[in-house]
Amino acid sequence: MANAVVSQSGGPTGVINASLVGVIEEAAQHPDIDHLYGAVHAVRGIVDEQFIDLKTLSVAELETLARSPSAGLGSSRDKPDEAYCKKILDVFEKRKIRYFFYIGGNDSANTCYIVNSMAEQIGYDLRAFHIPKTVDNDLLVTDHCPGYGTAARFVVCALMGDDLDNRALPGVKIDVIMGRHAGFLTAASALARQRDDDGPHLIYVPERPLGIDRFLAEVDEVYKRLGRCVIAVSEGIADTDGKTWAEKLAENAERDAHGNVQLSGTGALADYMASEVKTKLKIKRVRADTFGYLQRSFAGLQSEVDADEARRCGRQAVAYSKTMDNGSVAIRRTGNGDRYVAELFRTDLSAVAEKTKSMPDEFINSKGNGVTEAFLKYARPLVGVLPKTVYLGTRPRV
Amino acid sequence: MANAVVSQSGGPTGVINASLVGVIEEAAQHPDIDHLYGAVHAVRGIVDEQFIDLKTLSVAELETLARSPSAGLGSSRDKPDEAYCKKILDVFEKRKIRYFFYIGGNDSANTCYIVNSMAEQIGYDLRAFHIPKTVDNDLLVTDHCPGYGTAARFVVCALMGDDLDNRALPGVKIDVIMGRHAGFLTAASALARQRDDDGPHLIYVPERPLGIDRFLAEVDEVYKRLGRCVIAVSEGIADTDGKTWAEKLAENAERDAHGNVQLSGTGALADYMASEVKTKLKIKRVRADTFGYLQRSFAGLQSEVDADEARRCGRQAVAYSKTMDNGSVAIRRTGNGDRYVAELFRTDLSAVAEKTKSMPDEFINSKGNGVTEAFLKYARPLVGVLPKTVYLGTRPRV
Repeated sequence: MANAVVSQSGGPTGVINASLVGVIEEAAQHPDIDHLYGAVHAVRGIVDEQFIDLKTLSVAELETLARSPSAGLGSSRDKPDEAYCKKILDVFEKRKIRYFFYIGGNDSANTCYIVNSMAEQIGYDLRAFHIPKTVDNDLLVTDHCPGYGTAARFVVCALMGDDLDNRALPGVKIDVIMGRHAGFLTAASALARQRDDDGPHLIYVPERPLGIDRFLAEVDEVYKRLGRCVIAVSEGIADTDGKTWAEKLAENAERDAHGNVQLSGTGALADYMASEVKTKLKIKRVRADTFGYLQRSFAGLQSEVDADEARRCGRQAVAYSKTMDNGSVAIRRTGNGDRYVAELFRTDLSAVAEKTKSMPDEFINSKGNGVTEAFLKYARPLVGVLPKTVYLGTRPRV
Repeated sequence: MANAVVSQSGGPTGVINASLVGVIEEAAQHPDIDHLYGAVHAVRGIVDEQFIDLKTLSVAELETLARSPSAGLGSSRDKPDEAYCKKILDVFEKRKIRYFFYIGGNDSANTCYIVNSMAEQIGYDLRAFHIPKTVDNDLLVTDHCPGYGTAARFVVCALMGDDLDNRALPGVKIDVIMGRHAGFLTAASALARQRDDDGPHLIYVPERPLGIDRFLAEVDEVYKRLGRCVIAVSEGIADTDGKTWAEKLAENAERDAHGNVQLSGTGALADYMASEVKTKLKIKRVRADTFGYLQRSFAGLQSEVDADEARRCGRQAVAYSKTMDNGSVAIRRTGNGDRYVAELFRTDLSAVAEKTKSMPDEFINSKGNGVTEAFLKYARPLVGVLPKTVYLGTRPRV
């Protein structure tokens, strides 16, 4: 008999709790897992021994939890070094924890990797598994990350409505979307388009530098052509010199423990871009929204595909732990043609740890201001069935 | 035989198209209404004769339209004066339009009123009906406005997720919500609470002045007590001297044709409040989001009650026009006890025109930083069935 611990790390998502429920329900199938501890606030909860008993949750609670956004166990931005990981291992030994399931991004995969390596060094039998989650979709190996589809669904529904709003009251609208280095989430906004002239008309991702002059010229072109322009731009958009616009704006930008500049939770980038458009292009109605935390934690808005895959990833991590020592759960597509089928597989922790993925070149158009058909084909199955809309204002006059 | 025109004005909502569909389907029941014109971009579309034929839409299109956010006919911020209204009447005469259905806020009710008065003066037989819509819920006479419940639903789902996000990664979170003079939409955020210590912990509405010192003291109190604090604040929040915080921040604030300062579409207020909390209270993790246009135009997120009432208001306006000369459609509650039943009635255009309603005193708590049980009872039926959530991090430790 041995105990298991599961925890959630990094920025919450709309389906990270579905992965947690997957772990809980699969662990219940394995009688040799005695206690299943939930560590509150990630690694911090492990070293502080802030554990709750996850075997006492009712089926009804689990189903509600699986639909709840954010991390039900709490999260943390702590980035454990070797000394921190040693403390984790001490608690594992003390509590007879031999299974470690960690739901998070590439930093979490790295924590899993370090703890697992240290356990191997001292000959402590541990099964360490990483369960992927990000809204940025920037993990290596896996085709896509649980959490992305749901955040993308939010972005798509927001842009659908926002574009109709912009048709009703025309002008320039700038939407700043999460994505520090990877543009997947911003790119998903393209799925909002249902008609030829639907926005977003310009999509800017961190993978392509954007100078202010090109930005203004492209907005000007669209505005002159359509009388309006909707823009989706990643918060991590970089200037031609490689520095991000946000860095340039926020000289005193707050940095988190991972050395990242804080990009969300401030409207500065959106306001700057709007002000430039207004003053340089002399366009009267210019508005900007920063989607902020809503896109990762909105209640009641999951992509069903995403929630299902997140849950399967949680279950699969536990299943792998019965026959394998460690690893990260990854997703691959196996469907033929247009049929979307996802299959899970194990990959090495080291293949995922600390690395990030950017959008491949074939997903970004040649001008660097939009996405390709290949991207739309990639992203469409992940966001679930989308609402349809009607706009009448372009119909023939009588 | 006579023709009818319908149009939509002011800021779009999530159900203003449901009202439009209500007008279309009821008009189809009245063979003496020959053409039903949709005027594109409100009064502007009338004077420019930008009409589309609304009798050609299929039932399937109508159902999709009823679920589409924003104004399907386009909108306008034009505020017609007498000369403008004379042009409207000229077009009505030229096109034999004897029914005028105008979906909008108090400015639209006023346009209806002026056009109707001018028609009476020249002896032109016109039936002019106003169909209410606002997300602010600030129209007089009616118990509540179509559009409010759906925007409130967005705010509630956002706050539910945002509070869970703030539990996962504790700190101070400030959410700036639409509401220039009326706090109904911000107040609705209170419906997000499911547990005793759920946020929003502080709710600030334009009806109560808020000085920076009180604001900081109240945030400090909550943060010290709970280790976190979620704040919902109206964009129109005013300082103790009566000036809005936004006005003070935006000396060169853009004003629209109605003389209103632009409050949405900028993150300045949120960023200012966050910066004050961060520097004055020395709290490290402080974030702020401005909900902006998402809250009025998000696709796929209607309150069913709201959508149903919006549609009924549209139908009823046409029904009234068969036996009455003019008016505005209003809603009253007729249910007993906890049962919510809404009934429609006609009120005078002049009772709604140009006036706004604020939150009644009994809806705001004595400290001016939250809402009362009476408000919750008022607002709860309007937002539809809400998602439930689970948070585990406060459960007993093992």
